Amino acid sequence: MSFISIDNIIQASERIQVHRTPIQTCTALNELASVQGAPIELFFKCELLQKTGSFKFRGASNAVALLSDQEAANGVVTHSSGNHAQALALAAKNRGIPAYIVMPTTTPDIKRAAVLGFGATVIECQPIQSVREETAEKVKLETGATLIHPFNNPHVIAGQGTIALELLSQVEDLDAILIPVGGGGMLTGCAIAAKALKPGIKVFAAEPAAVNDTYRSFKTKQRAVNGVAKSVADGLLTNIGDIAYAGIEENVNDVFTVSEKEIINAMELVWNRMKLCIEPSAAVGVAVTLYNQDFKQVVKKEGIKRIGVVLCGGNVDLVKATELFQQYKKDI
Amino acid sequence: MSFISIDNIIQASERIQVHRTPIQTCTALNELASVQGAPIELFFKCELLQKTGSFKFRGASNAVALLSDQEAANGVVTHSSGNHAQALALAAKNRGIPAYIVMPTTTPDIKRAAVLGFGATVIECQPIQSVREETAEKVKLETGATLIHPFNNPHVIAGQGTIALELLSQVEDLDAILIPVGGGGMLTGCAIAAKALKPGIKVFAAEPAAVNDTYRSFKTKQRAVNGVAKSVADGLLTNIGDIAYAGIEENVNDVFTVSEKEIINAMELVWNRMKLCIEPSAAVGVAVTLYNQDFKQVVKKEGIKRIGVVLCGGNVDLVKATELFQQYKKDI
Repeated sequence: MSFISIDNIIQASERIQVHRTPIQTCTALNELASVQGAPIELFFKCELLQKTGSFKFRGASNAVALLSDQEAANGVVTHSSGNHAQALALAAKNRGIPAYIVMPTTTPDIKRAAVLGFGATVIECQPIQSVREETAEKVKLETGATLIHPFNNPHVIAGQGTIALELLSQVEDLDAILIPVGGGGMLTGCAIAAKALKPGIKVFAAEPAAVNDTYRSFKTKQRAVNGVAKSVADGLLTNIGDIAYAGIEENVNDVFTVSEKEIINAMELVWNRMKLCIEPSAAVGVAVTLYNQDFKQVVKKEGIKRIGVVLCGGNVDLVKATELFQQYKKDI
Repeated sequence: MSFISIDNIIQASERIQVHRTPIQTCTALNELASVQGAPIELFFKCELLQKTGSFKFRGASNAVALLSDQEAANGVVTHSSGNHAQALALAAKNRGIPAYIVMPTTTPDIKRAAVLGFGATVIECQPIQSVREETAEKVKLETGATLIHPFNNPHVIAGQGTIALELLSQVEDLDAILIPVGGGGMLTGCAIAAKALKPGIKVFAAEPAAVNDTYRSFKTKQRAVNGVAKSVADGLLTNIGDIAYAGIEENVNDVFTVSEKEIINAMELVWNRMKLCIEPSAAVGVAVTLYNQDFKQVVKKEGIKRIGVVLCGGNVDLVKATELFQQYKKDI
């Protein structure tokens, strides 16, 4: 990752205007995560309390801030139905430039409304990846807007890295950080920051077993892709991006996966015990600490005690979430 | 309130081991709370993120810490089905002493389980106020335990006052604080702290209109009591206590009430926009800022701009909460 350095991340942290999100701890979750004879302390970085409800605002803000005035005048474009859409819309609004968001027709009203609420222009398209990309390309050509990719963009990755920069300044002596992985922007940015500041730290990725392309890519050293991309963790459905994949061996110490049921159970625990409305994607790291036996073995073997876990977002339909809790309310 | 001073509160803050809960802000709620031509900034003190999920742990911890070793050896007793029960159970556990919690047979399992989880002894009784008090008295006589009242206790009140102590150190130049009122322990403690540290600050109480004994007491200067005590804000059903009532004129600048529907709407907004699972009682202050027209007039007239709002707890059944959201999902 020679083209994204700790300096880029430090500069991003000075450049972007974001919430310095709090760290929360929870005795009950520490107890559940602890292996016999090896007590664990979890430090939760609350990016669900970030502006727009997810960490994505960091990367989008950095990318928008780094546009020249000339580029900025034509605005920005992306295709996303999720957290990057809202993040880019607000980042553009804050700079006073247009944002064009390509959204599939299947996007829930509440997500479309959020983007419109930030003054962005929404362009609808069919819910097919190639059509989304083509539509964004067309908007780019017509408007001169700059495409801001949700994760495969060095400025976005540098912005996401500011999560780890803050986390390491807020919590001393972390042995490891645990980052959910979808496209890998947050994982890569946080890994570069954490390993630069604390070379011995372990960086672990957390992924739904149902969309485990990163797990397979890491284990087989061959780039894997997801088949049918379906998981309750709707922020992590995408395949890992080129930039994240290129740095995976350097950046990532291991990848752990969890089942859909484990994700939902961890999510409900965080709502109930920590009073934080996390989205399913944010529960994936928590679920790894609670339920993944390989992770527990590594933790014990390596003497890992203090773990930073990124709660990456909180954009979720409240009613659907509690329906999931009821549906999955069984012992693991 | 000559017998509770700012010194008691400062000493309590040095004595008790509690989370220094974060302050959160929310642009969307600021906009909704602002009166035309008078922008408001709300600073939310997140006591739902306190240990045991509510501010009650502060007061209980202070009261338990102030027992002599001899008193402590016999333990503590209270009657509560709510947040004080959990708070006292954990405070007693942390000191290594017994806790006896008298709970009505109607108490939800999850609340009983939480108290049992902290190692307390639960004594069941009929869900009648006089029976609860008699049962607690009986336990006290049998065990020699000290009764720790949930609000009508100076040490408890001093503990709750540490909320305002922290809030004023975390946010500069607050013009007012807005505190939900049930028995008035938090209101009184916070008022004493806030007015000692910042004499010009306004202290406002927020109360459900359905259980408005404090509102009527304040307005008529005659002590009022609630009839049928029924509100979704189950932490605020009780009548104001003797200590809080005695200081009401000195401590409180005004009292504002909100409807059940306004409470639920405010609660859903906080869940959705701030990603914080507050309980209905914690939404009462938020609802005042959003919907109470008398409050909005006072804010405008007095030039109030920066308001601290205490989100006092987050102990709520998630499924029932979202059912309420759906049931009340109408415009106000």
